[in-house]
Amino acid sequence: MGSALVILIGLSTVIASLPAQTPTTTAPLSLERYRSVADSILHAGLFSGKAAAMLADLTGSAGARLSGSPGAERAVEWARATMRANDLDNVHLQSVMVPHWVRGSQVEAAITNTMTGDPIGMHACALGGSIGTPVAGTDGDVIEVKSLEEAAKLGAAAQGKIIFFNRPMDPTLTNTFEAYGRAVDQRVNGVVAAGRVGAVGVIVRSMSTSIDTLPHTGMLHYDDSVTKVPAVAISTLDADRLSAMLVSRPSVHVRLRLDCRTLPDVESANVIGEIEGSEKSNEVILLGAHLDSWDLATGAHDDGAGCAQALEALRLLKTLKLRPKRTIRVVLFMNEENGLRGATAYASQVNDTKEKHIAAIESDRGGFAPRGFEVEGEDADVARLARWARLFETMGAERFSKGESGADVGPLKKHGALTIGLIPESQRYFDYHHAASDTFNNVNPRELELGATAMALLAYLISEEGL
Amino acid sequence: MGSALVILIGLSTVIASLPAQTPTTTAPLSLERYRSVADSILHAGLFSGKAAAMLADLTGSAGARLSGSPGAERAVEWARATMRANDLDNVHLQSVMVPHWVRGSQVEAAITNTMTGDPIGMHACALGGSIGTPVAGTDGDVIEVKSLEEAAKLGAAAQGKIIFFNRPMDPTLTNTFEAYGRAVDQRVNGVVAAGRVGAVGVIVRSMSTSIDTLPHTGMLHYDDSVTKVPAVAISTLDADRLSAMLVSRPSVHVRLRLDCRTLPDVESANVIGEIEGSEKSNEVILLGAHLDSWDLATGAHDDGAGCAQALEALRLLKTLKLRPKRTIRVVLFMNEENGLRGATAYASQVNDTKEKHIAAIESDRGGFAPRGFEVEGEDADVARLARWARLFETMGAERFSKGESGADVGPLKKHGALTIGLIPESQRYFDYHHAASDTFNNVNPRELELGATAMALLAYLISEEGL
Repeated sequence: MGSALVILIGLSTVIASLPAQTPTTTAPLSLERYRSVADSILHAGLFSGKAAAMLADLTGSAGARLSGSPGAERAVEWARATMRANDLDNVHLQSVMVPHWVRGSQVEAAITNTMTGDPIGMHACALGGSIGTPVAGTDGDVIEVKSLEEAAKLGAAAQGKIIFFNRPMDPTLTNTFEAYGRAVDQRVNGVVAAGRVGAVGVIVRSMSTSIDTLPHTGMLHYDDSVTKVPAVAISTLDADRLSAMLVSRPSVHVRLRLDCRTLPDVESANVIGEIEGSEKSNEVILLGAHLDSWDLATGAHDDGAGCAQALEALRLLKTLKLRPKRTIRVVLFMNEENGLRGATAYASQVNDTKEKHIAAIESDRGGFAPRGFEVEGEDADVARLARWARLFETMGAERFSKGESGADVGPLKKHGALTIGLIPESQRYFDYHHAASDTFNNVNPRELELGATAMALLAYLISEEGL
Repeated sequence: MGSALVILIGLSTVIASLPAQTPTTTAPLSLERYRSVADSILHAGLFSGKAAAMLADLTGSAGARLSGSPGAERAVEWARATMRANDLDNVHLQSVMVPHWVRGSQVEAAITNTMTGDPIGMHACALGGSIGTPVAGTDGDVIEVKSLEEAAKLGAAAQGKIIFFNRPMDPTLTNTFEAYGRAVDQRVNGVVAAGRVGAVGVIVRSMSTSIDTLPHTGMLHYDDSVTKVPAVAISTLDADRLSAMLVSRPSVHVRLRLDCRTLPDVESANVIGEIEGSEKSNEVILLGAHLDSWDLATGAHDDGAGCAQALEALRLLKTLKLRPKRTIRVVLFMNEENGLRGATAYASQVNDTKEKHIAAIESDRGGFAPRGFEVEGEDADVARLARWARLFETMGAERFSKGESGADVGPLKKHGALTIGLIPESQRYFDYHHAASDTFNNVNPRELELGATAMALLAYLISEEGL
């Protein structure tokens, strides 16, 4: 792009992407009414937004934030202090007991060199929740499978073996979250499938859209009735290499050495603050994200970005003196990654209060440019929100669709809340997800801020208009 | 994002973002007809696409590609060889004479330390086309202005001074190309404004959305009737620092030293290949991008990405055996950055042929996730293309709007072609544009490929349905 191009574009020019079923009766009125609100939120965010600054502060001062870790506790204190600094109402902690898994200092997934007997290391990491191995390690010949079903069919052939789950995320799905959802059963349930057939360990291909040397961690689930086996993720490059070896060699022997372990639960907290509604303060619109992260990086996209956006959304409304009719609350949940204890605890006390949660909007898909929102409801719920789509176009967030909200706000659905997920562009998310590369330098400040402005606007519209 | 979330989303879920004025009469038919085509193009692109591989090859083998440079000539040969390898029809070069500016080995923009007299360097680069300075350099006190008008008003006060143009790109515009368009006059025309009032040199704040240490180059235009002065861009961080100094000090003295110069024009070429139409081969749908780049990096986004996407669009159609009714041609233009000689030469010979160019689609806004297309035409032209919007939704490219196409296809408008620009997400483009950071590692392969699939589909739809 040289200097010849000068763009003059206005809202009128993007009319071609307006929602089809905008009810032309009601929409123009409410659009007219809220246009200046949308413009002022966008302007304030892009001109003097603080989302990136808050994310830099969280990732820099708290660091990695796995539940039970010192980093998670620093994050709780940081969040409380930041909410107070932003002058939110009713800032408080909700105590919650969380699992405490520690990675330890040792990880080895080494292929035995058949000539020399020396180990050939792979880029690996223990999966979250994995048991450790004996000091000498756990070793066996590798059997590659593409699914849990294939592992179950191995039967006795799996005795003493290490099962290698190597079904990639489907690259042909534009929605990378769908590809993740269809592949992650290997990481979550592979250990049980392997234990059932007498295997001694599990290797999983990293859940990643990138072919590189980074291992991606994430939670696994054991079944107490099945022998527990240790599990690691290896990088996608190592997975391809291992798979090729299994074709060219009669057998490939691998040794796993891990000293990770699970310690007793520890006390942690959800961090909560709000802007009290001026008219219906007992009706709540919740903005949610999770404060904990995995331990290989500082969780900038997952989910520091969501925390910064939820905090920024409320900061923007306060800065612009947009006092909502209903209460707009930010809840930074603890332990989304490996237990969902924070979300469960929050939902469990909703009935004890006189409050009514009418909507809950979660940001947990990375700090990328927003495309819109997914609504976990009926077509009518989508259409109701889509009436406002035009107001979100300059933010790039005009897509309203039926879909998934998020793990932390999910439990609020049965309490009557319409649960909604902020949907950013998804192509890059799984390059970084749960890997050492999920750091601040991979977040674009403008893309992050645009998501925060979209959350602020949607929360405000719901608070003023109801659902 | 933990493992709890499993997404099941289909086209039906994004219905809320369908174009408003889709003519429900004709659209469903053609949509129905082309759904499988759209699906097969997307599938082939994401499963075994070559856009990223071609971009890696171009940037790696040709390197930086400023017109007249050895890199530009390597790029011409690379493009011809790649078109032949992709089995395109009528692969050939169109000879064109291009300017030949060389940066030289020296760039200095140094602030004189008032205590010691030592120079304090700034991160700077010569602007494209700038004259050099005497070996001893050109020096003067700095005057900061925010516009060409402000510079003109300086009058005699500018005699012997160095004028510092420091109006930032407007961060509040979501469309960063609009912000660029409103700021770039300082870089392009600052030297003439400065020369007119007797200034001896120009410093321009880099055209960038990022606050960092990278200077961004780009073309300037002299007026032969006005004394030519040398010009540099400094990084946004240095611009802020220099501006602060000008507030705190009575005067700031700067010396510029440049040995850049313009050599005689040299011969280069546009590179052209196509898939000949099966029924109306004399009607052409052109896919355009520019082969040249600036010299500070390998021009991965600007415009290696566009070249790879245009080549990939044709490769996908051939791979899928989608023989178009009309001819679909790729033209990789030479010299978009500092002369537009390739585009001018191509347009100038259109009338000599029996061909009719019905549409020209350019990709020159970076290899980011596509959002849609801007159409340089009437509302009716936008609406005609927007009938197909639903087919582009899984590619994320369903926005059809009135706007700008691109510098290289622009001249084809007066020859009757509907000119169209591929519009990717724009937040990151100007972090890299014309700077040392515009490299392959800053391009996401999936985002790049999605743009190529959208170009392939639009070209095919126009070739089958006409306009």
